Amino acid sequence: MIKKVDHIGIAVKSLEHALPFYTDVLKLPLLGIEEVESENVKVAFLKAGETKLELLEPTSEESAIARYIEKRGEGIHHVALGVESIQDRINDMKENGIKMIQDVPKKGAGGGTGSIHASKINRKHFI
Amino acid sequence: MIKKVDHIGIAVKSLEHALPFYTDVLKLPLLGIEEVESENVKVAFLKAGETKLELLEPTSEESAIARYIEKRGEGIHHVALGVESIQDRINDMKENGIKMIQDVPKKGAGGGTGSIHASKINRKHFI
Repeated sequence: MIKKVDHIGIAVKSLEHALPFYTDVLKLPLLGIEEVESENVKVAFLKAGETKLELLEPTSEESAIARYIEKRGEGIHHVALGVESIQDRINDMKENGIKMIQDVPKKGAGGGTGSIHASKINRKHFI
Repeated sequence: MIKKVDHIGIAVKSLEHALPFYTDVLKLPLLGIEEVESENVKVAFLKAGETKLELLEPTSEESAIARYIEKRGEGIHHVALGVESIQDRINDMKENGIKMIQDVPKKGAGGGTGSIHASKINRKHFI
């Protein structure tokens, strides 16, 4: 069962440049900043009700976020849905013929502030 | 104060084609389908915790959603934040030098299922 929109990932070139709009103008509480070395990103977490906004700054040109920005510009990169049993949902998807980018749940950012596991499905299946 | 992510608007070419993934695979409850003539869109509302996903199908080539799909393809069109006092937040934005697309709150879709007023700020200020 889907419980909520867990977070919205937003690709930005620079946290230093992007953050003040979210913290000072929108006045969203900043929950923390974390570097995820395996993904080559620095992530700032902001609270909007039960959902987090995650600003994603690439720390290397190898980062998927860097490639995204180069191709499509800054902006919303992904929406993550919070579920009760990630493995059951992955099985569900596969039974419905959805091609997974990863078959196995993966530890993402925010492990310290909750317990986020991301499993991605192909974008074309969302629309 | 920002209370939550009220909804995520997703541009789709056809509700008939897009909806089954959300209702049958993701199993999100369908809250309703509504036509908003002033915006030339048909909207399907789905519940994901305190947030709604709104699938937006253009009903005319004049629709902003039709133009969006033509330019960028189907996908996430906007994120709407739910606030306590929309007019206070608009004033806040303007005091902070943010250029509004509309100065005055505007009645959007979903009036029957809640009370959504959308006021848009320029995309470039989000990032």
